Amino acid sequence: MTTVQDVSDWWATGVSRVEPGVIELRGRPVQELIGTTSFASTIWLMLRGDLPTATQERLLEAALVASVDHGPHAPSIAAARIAATCGVGLNNAVATGVNLLGDTHGGAGQQCLELLADVLARQARGDSLETAATAAIAAWRDRSRYLPGFGHRFHTVDPRREPLLSLVDEAVSEGAVKGDILRAGRAVEAVLNEGRARPIPMNVDGATAIIYGELGFPAPLARGLFVLGRSVGILAHAWEESQQGRRNKGPMPPGIAPTFLGSPATG
Amino acid sequence: MTTVQDVSDWWATGVSRVEPGVIELRGRPVQELIGTTSFASTIWLMLRGDLPTATQERLLEAALVASVDHGPHAPSIAAARIAATCGVGLNNAVATGVNLLGDTHGGAGQQCLELLADVLARQARGDSLETAATAAIAAWRDRSRYLPGFGHRFHTVDPRREPLLSLVDEAVSEGAVKGDILRAGRAVEAVLNEGRARPIPMNVDGATAIIYGELGFPAPLARGLFVLGRSVGILAHAWEESQQGRRNKGPMPPGIAPTFLGSPATG
Amino acid sequence: MTTVQDVSDWWATGVSRVEPGVIELRGRPVQELIGTTSFASTIWLMLRGDLPTATQERLLEAALVASVDHGPHAPSIAAARIAATCGVGLNNAVATGVNLLGDTHGGAGQQCLELLADVLARQARGDSLETAATAAIAAWRDRSRYLPGFGHRFHTVDPRREPLLSLVDEAVSEGAVKGDILRAGRAVEAVLNEGRARPIPMNVDGATAIIYGELGFPAPLARGLFVLGRSVGILAHAWEESQQGRRNKGPMPPGIAPTFLGSPATG
Amino acid sequence: MTTVQDVSDWWATGVSRVEPGVIELRGRPVQELIGTTSFASTIWLMLRGDLPTATQERLLEAALVASVDHGPHAPSIAAARIAATCGVGLNNAVATGVNLLGDTHGGAGQQCLELLADVLARQARGDSLETAATAAIAAWRDRSRYLPGFGHRFHTVDPRREPLLSLVDEAVSEGAVKGDILRAGRAVEAVLNEGRARPIPMNVDGATAIIYGELGFPAPLARGLFVLGRSVGILAHAWEESQQGRRNKGPMPPGIAPTFLGSPATG
Repeated sequence: MTTVQDVSDWWATGVSRVEPGVIELRGRPVQELIGTTSFASTIWLMLRGDLPTATQERLLEAALVASVDHGPHAPSIAAARIAATCGVGLNNAVATGVNLLGDTHGGAGQQCLELLADVLARQARGDSLETAATAAIAAWRDRSRYLPGFGHRFHTVDPRREPLLSLVDEAVSEGAVKGDILRAGRAVEAVLNEGRARPIPMNVDGATAIIYGELGFPAPLARGLFVLGRSVGILAHAWEESQQGRRNKGPMPPGIAPTFLGSPATG
Repeated sequence: MTTVQDVSDWWATGVSRVEPGVIELRGRPVQELIGTTSFASTIWLMLRGDLPTATQERLLEAALVASVDHGPHAPSIAAARIAATCGVGLNNAVATGVNLLGDTHGGAGQQCLELLADVLARQARGDSLETAATAAIAAWRDRSRYLPGFGHRFHTVDPRREPLLSLVDEAVSEGAVKGDILRAGRAVEAVLNEGRARPIPMNVDGATAIIYGELGFPAPLARGLFVLGRSVGILAHAWEESQQGRRNKGPMPPGIAPTFLGSPATG
Repeated sequence: MTTVQDVSDWWATGVSRVEPGVIELRGRPVQELIGTTSFASTIWLMLRGDLPTATQERLLEAALVASVDHGPHAPSIAAARIAATCGVGLNNAVATGVNLLGDTHGGAGQQCLELLADVLARQARGDSLETAATAAIAAWRDRSRYLPGFGHRFHTVDPRREPLLSLVDEAVSEGAVKGDILRAGRAVEAVLNEGRARPIPMNVDGATAIIYGELGFPAPLARGLFVLGRSVGILAHAWEESQQGRRNKGPMPPGIAPTFLGSPATG
Repeated sequence: MTTVQDVSDWWATGVSRVEPGVIELRGRPVQELIGTTSFASTIWLMLRGDLPTATQERLLEAALVASVDHGPHAPSIAAARIAATCGVGLNNAVATGVNLLGDTHGGAGQQCLELLADVLARQARGDSLETAATAAIAAWRDRSRYLPGFGHRFHTVDPRREPLLSLVDEAVSEGAVKGDILRAGRAVEAVLNEGRARPIPMNVDGATAIIYGELGFPAPLARGLFVLGRSVGILAHAWEESQQGRRNKGPMPPGIAPTFLGSPATG
């Protein structure tokens, strides 16, 4: 027999408790968080169940800040700006951008963390770090020609790499994080660039994956946290576009028409 | 004649500049922000073009923290949890929740700020604050039976109201914000509750609208910032649900079937 | 006390009934519809509760066919193509396009039907059709500079107008529809173009609004039906794009960068 | 050097051509389609580049009709109904539902077609049909405990199976389709149910996958076409819900609160 308890259990959660006069986030009354806890620490709390240390908070802030925007050539930003001109709410425009942060546009951090976990697993089974990195790269390359977290079509050197890795170095030397994922990431970068004239540097996805991994986040949350960071840029662009008063903005100015390819059967 | 410049201008933006080796957010190199600037300050920067003072940052953090979650009875959270069981990406689940933060579920802050602006406009035209509040409430009630920012179906007293308003009081006494929107909000609350046995207190939308207004955000960004705050709860719930391994979770446990209403023509 | 019946009632519907071994759409067993009923008739059934006559079906098919596509300069199509390159599902790409069919991109049919209802209401109060059309246009123009259903930035004559209106003419002469909404639409077009050198012809939104109105659909379903029609084009474009193998396609080819506007405060 | 032509080519398409006064769908002027071509045939045209025969059209109509709705326990329908109460447009509510038709909720047809292609590939390499089916099932089961297109948590016999397969039988006997995918599907069903007391019948995803496969659609379009079909039910439910005037409807009636799970760390 189905009971009301079944319904209540169907929606059971450990994230928050809401009753008349009570809102608890991970067991903490919201009124104790307001004014005492930063937004970044609250993000940590909601995903982890406790509050971060100062070093953990600093690393999380840095990774989020590094992710906020990469301009309107990025599909998510472009789509949100287009949406903002179509007579939908600002939330719908943001949702449109977030919806595009899929496997290839928002998933590289998650995939990079999986790659680095593979390096560490191989090392744990007895390989040297270099051998493990070489093998993990080869295994990935069998599946895809893109190595997640490395290389960038725009930047020869990604300006976000250096300051992010410096913060991890600092945290390692403080003993705040272990550093094994950082070492795995640097090993992959070294193997990848051995003897190359044109370097393939670690990009923002690689550097933030290292941070999220060192902080103990599971790989899918590397994507989840990227979503939170990039939402800021998506909102800023959608808002700017909405202030310009265009209606139904397409990708091209009105004077340009798409080339017609003929009508091949595509079925 | 259409030129490449036209295309470049069609996508012109003041939010960010991205060139090989360069990423600037509102004119600031991203590498100078990483490690020095909090996530909340970066949100301010992206929406306002400059960095906040310490008080401005504290108020913004508080409003964001207050908004993160209200449990899975909230439609946005429920929809994101449902989405997380359907074989879509975590970003798609978050987008599903954000997409629901529309006029009635995410727009109350924006509307409340418009209401309070109306109070202040009436006061500027010579009304006393009380008269202005009374008239603004009446004007709103002509359009809708819900007064945005006041009352809550769950909470007799919204636990988020008091700590948020205290922070604004503090900022007023420091001279960091003017306090006129706070006074307008309190006047509306007073008029609304005059002689009522069961009070209609200011809710989180009202208190955060006051903060966003005192900080100088235009009304639509009250919704935009609510989206950023609530995205955290949406992500935390979608992630929790995804870890529970359900497939295609509907609103009801499998044992319950919806009542059939017959088949009225609805056209 | 809350009971399981409350939950069942909370999700009550007249659209369909599903029990073990039973699927009824508006009271009709689905197995009786499969193979006997066209897709367009099933759309009618689901929205109206009964099956259409042959003329009703023909008009509905025509309006749906007229709406399927308007090329990748349309924001919905562009956004769906962009989405298709981001590593999300084909359903997510279609949803992205549909999400953009908002008030200004998908709402013109709905608004046009409201405009024509205003014409008829004025006529019912004693105005001549021409006077009613003039007044309704003026009332709309007070709110917006765009008259929904009329004019097109691409087409001097919308090629979809003529065949759609011919079908309505035919249906009127058969006595299958009343024709008053058609007459209101033509009156608006006549008033609008009086003495104009460059005509503002009725567009596809106007012509389909007339069809949906003559068929008895309420105005919001003019948008709903446009969504169903345009979903076909959105799917076809998303599919074509996905076959081209691009990754993370932005609005501009890689060689073009957006102009930087400087960094004005936008708050 | 980048030219305007590059931009035009970046958006090149074979689906449609739009110029002033001209709208062609797959090379056919839209005005020749309106009034002469059914909505289902237009769907075929847009995805395939030509028009279907009468038998092809009949099969496509049947598969679309079979997919329109499975009630509000289905996550996509539930989410769309929830969305319809949140102050977003009807298009946003439909997009919310479509967004949920992911790998496990809308992808079974696509996966089933891949499974049946595997059966046929094994048969082409010399296996008997039964051996090929057994091996293909085993290969699939290695990856997932769900066999796409077979079994249903609600229906012991899916009422949509029989009428759909009858239509394919008919088309085979007419010589309109080859029938090899149908035979593969029946072989899988036979192997799967050998000696089982409680049968696992082919479900609607299996039967429509057979139709789409026999018609020559590539597997991903089995999902695409399911999206078009189910959009009808999503729209009908969202519209019905929007007429009931609820605001911010959650999954449970207001009297039920979700169980609190305590606050485990989930990171």
